[in-house]
Amino acid sequence: MPIAETWLLPDGVADVLPEQAQVIETLRRKALDFLARRGYQLVYTPFIEYIESLSSISDSNQDLDLATFKIIDQLSGRLLGVRADMTPQVARIDAHVHPVEGIARYCYAGTVLHTKPQGFNTNRAPLQLGAELFGSSCIDADVELVDLMLSLLEHAGFADGIHLDLGHVGLFRSLVKHANLDKDAEQHLSDLYQRKALPELAAYTHDLPCGADFNALGRYASDLNALRQNLSPQVWADDEFAMAFNALATTSAEIQKRWPNLHIGIDVVELRSYHYHTGLTYAVYAPHRAAPLAQGGRYDGIGKHFGRARPATGFSCDLYALCAGQFEPVSVVVAPKGSQQDLLEAIAQLRAEGRNVIQLLGQDDVDSVAYATHRLQHINGQWAVEQI
Amino acid sequence: MPIAETWLLPDGVADVLPEQAQVIETLRRKALDFLARRGYQLVYTPFIEYIESLSSISDSNQDLDLATFKIIDQLSGRLLGVRADMTPQVARIDAHVHPVEGIARYCYAGTVLHTKPQGFNTNRAPLQLGAELFGSSCIDADVELVDLMLSLLEHAGFADGIHLDLGHVGLFRSLVKHANLDKDAEQHLSDLYQRKALPELAAYTHDLPCGADFNALGRYASDLNALRQNLSPQVWADDEFAMAFNALATTSAEIQKRWPNLHIGIDVVELRSYHYHTGLTYAVYAPHRAAPLAQGGRYDGIGKHFGRARPATGFSCDLYALCAGQFEPVSVVVAPKGSQQDLLEAIAQLRAEGRNVIQLLGQDDVDSVAYATHRLQHINGQWAVEQI
Repeated sequence: MPIAETWLLPDGVADVLPEQAQVIETLRRKALDFLARRGYQLVYTPFIEYIESLSSISDSNQDLDLATFKIIDQLSGRLLGVRADMTPQVARIDAHVHPVEGIARYCYAGTVLHTKPQGFNTNRAPLQLGAELFGSSCIDADVELVDLMLSLLEHAGFADGIHLDLGHVGLFRSLVKHANLDKDAEQHLSDLYQRKALPELAAYTHDLPCGADFNALGRYASDLNALRQNLSPQVWADDEFAMAFNALATTSAEIQKRWPNLHIGIDVVELRSYHYHTGLTYAVYAPHRAAPLAQGGRYDGIGKHFGRARPATGFSCDLYALCAGQFEPVSVVVAPKGSQQDLLEAIAQLRAEGRNVIQLLGQDDVDSVAYATHRLQHINGQWAVEQI
Repeated sequence: MPIAETWLLPDGVADVLPEQAQVIETLRRKALDFLARRGYQLVYTPFIEYIESLSSISDSNQDLDLATFKIIDQLSGRLLGVRADMTPQVARIDAHVHPVEGIARYCYAGTVLHTKPQGFNTNRAPLQLGAELFGSSCIDADVELVDLMLSLLEHAGFADGIHLDLGHVGLFRSLVKHANLDKDAEQHLSDLYQRKALPELAAYTHDLPCGADFNALGRYASDLNALRQNLSPQVWADDEFAMAFNALATTSAEIQKRWPNLHIGIDVVELRSYHYHTGLTYAVYAPHRAAPLAQGGRYDGIGKHFGRARPATGFSCDLYALCAGQFEPVSVVVAPKGSQQDLLEAIAQLRAEGRNVIQLLGQDDVDSVAYATHRLQHINGQWAVEQI
C-alpha cells in the first residue's frame, strides 16, 4: 500500500475530530446521566463474545447474524462475534450475570460494528445508546419506555416536529393464529403490508380465512377507530388480539396525554421487526430524516436463550446520528513558559474554571499552537486572558 | 451449545456491572476532563481499519501485529484489523486527517482488543486512555507528558507509594552505532540487559568494540552519576549519546523538582520497547502491582507511515486496571405510582438533584425493585425520602 493511501479508512468508518468529539462526548454523558436519574443502571458489555451468546436473537433475526463480524478466538479456537447490537448482551446480563429479582432497568452506550451499512444509515460503527426494562409485562412499562425515549430526545435537543410511530406485532400475529394460516401465507401478507399494496391485498385476502379482517387490518392500519368499526366480532372475541389492541390504544392515549403536542402515528402492520419483537413497537422520526432517531419495542422472552425468559421492553439510538453535523469550536488558552508562582496559579485557576490551558514549551511561541483561541498575558501586574 | 453455557464469556473478556460501571464511567470522565483542561483535544478513533493503517508501528513491532484481530471487510474484500492500540490511529490523525501546523495535543479513551492477554494483564479488552503530543522534540515536551501522567494518576487517586521509572533508548542505540555492532550483537546485548545477567554481560563484552562501555551501561544502568564516572571519554564525545543522557538527566531532575516526594528510578537498559520508542521512556508503578499503571515514551517519526514524520511523545493506561476492585453501591429511590402534580414535582426535583428515581409500574410494590435503597413517601403532607 503506497503511503498516500495508508490513511484511507474503510467505507462507513470515520475518525471523530475534536470539534465533533466534544459534542458527542457531551451528549453521551448527558444521555447516560439522564437515564441514570430515571433509575436505569449503567452496564458495559464486552466487545466480543462467543457467537452462540450473541445470536440469542439471531435464530429469528438472520439480519443481525449477517451484520456480525466473526473472528476466531486464538485462546479457545472458537468462533467469536463482534457485537452488532448490545440488546442481547444486556439480556444475557439480566438473565444470568446480574439476575435481579423483580424489575431491572439497564442503560448502556458503546460502539457496535456492522459488516454492512444498515438501511439508510451508512455508518458501520454506530455509537449505540439504549435503555432496557426487564421483568414487567404491563402496559405501564411500555409507556415508561416510550416516554423515556421521548424525554431523552427532548433532552438531546429534539423537541420540535418529531413524530412518534406506534405499532404492535400482536394484532397481526394473533389474527394469523386465529385464521390458522401457514408460514407462506403469513409471509406473503407481511410482504403486502410492507409494500402497502392495498389492491393486491384485497385480491389476495378474498379467499383467505378471516380475509376481510386481514384486508381491514391493512386498509385501516393507521386508524384505531376505523379498525374498531371494521374488524369482525370474532376478532374482537380473541383475547390475544383484544389485549394487543388495548395495549396499543392505551399507550397511545397515555403518551398523548403526557405529550399533548406530539404527532403520534399508528401503524398496526409495521412488521419490519416482526420476528424479533413480541408486542408494542415504537420509533421516533425527525423531519427530513429517513432513519428513525430512536426505536425499540417489546421483546419478551429474549433471555430464554440464557436460561431465564423474562418480559422485556427497550429502545436504542445512534448517538452519531443524533449529533450529525454538529460541531463546537474548542477553546484553548495559551500561557507563556515559566514556573513563577503567580503564573502557575493563574493557569491552575483557569483550569479549575474549566478552561483548557496549554503552557508553551522550549523556544516555542504562541504560533506553535495553531488552534489556540486565547492567550494568557501579564497586563498591569495581573494575568489576564485575551482573545487571539 | 447448551443453554447453561450460552452466558459464558471468552477468557479475558468481562461484563462490567452497575456497581463497577459507574466507578469506571466517573474515572473516564474525570480523566478526559483533566486532559482537556491541559489542552489535550479529544478524538474518537475507529474500531476497525485497514490492516496497513494499523501496522504503522508493527513493521518494527511484531507484538502489536500478533495482538491484532484480523477480519475481512465484506465491502472491499480487504483485510481489516481491530485496533489493539490507539496510538498509531492518533498518529494517523495528526499526520493526515487533522494536520495541525506546530504542536498538536490529543487525548482519547476507548476499548482496544488483544488476541491474547498482554504480559501480566489478563484483560484482553482494556479501556485504553492516553495522551499524545506531536510536533515538538524538545525535552520540555517529555517533561510535560511525564508530569501529565503523574498528575492524572494523582487525580485518579494514586498519590502514595507510586514509583516512576525513566529510561532512554538513545543511550544504547547511539553506543551500538558508535561501536558499529551488527544486529546479532545488538540483540544479544539487549537480551543480556533484559535479563540483568551481569556476569554474562562482563564476559560477552570483554572482546566487543566499546565493550567496557557496554558493560558499564548495564552495570550502572540505574545510576546517572556512576555512568558519568565509568563511561569512557569517547562515549561522551558522541553527540547523540550526550544528548540522550542529557535528556534523561534533565527530565529526571525537572520531574523531581515538581514532585519532591516521588521515587524516581532510572534504567538506561530498559529496552522492552526498544524497536518502537526513539527516546525517553517512562512508566509509573504502584506497590504490589506487577504491571505499570501507565507508560509511554517518545516515538518520533511514527507518522512517517502516513506521509508526515513528526516528533511525538505520549503515554497510555488501562482504566480498568486503575479501577480494579473498586465498587460503588448504586443508590435508587423508589417512588409510588401516580400522576398527582405534587408527586411528579417531587420526583423531578430529586432527579434534578442527581438522585436516581424509579416510579412503580402497574400493580408492583417497592419489592419489585430489588436494588432499591430508598423510598419516596408522603409523610405529614410532604414527600420525603427514607432509607429502606
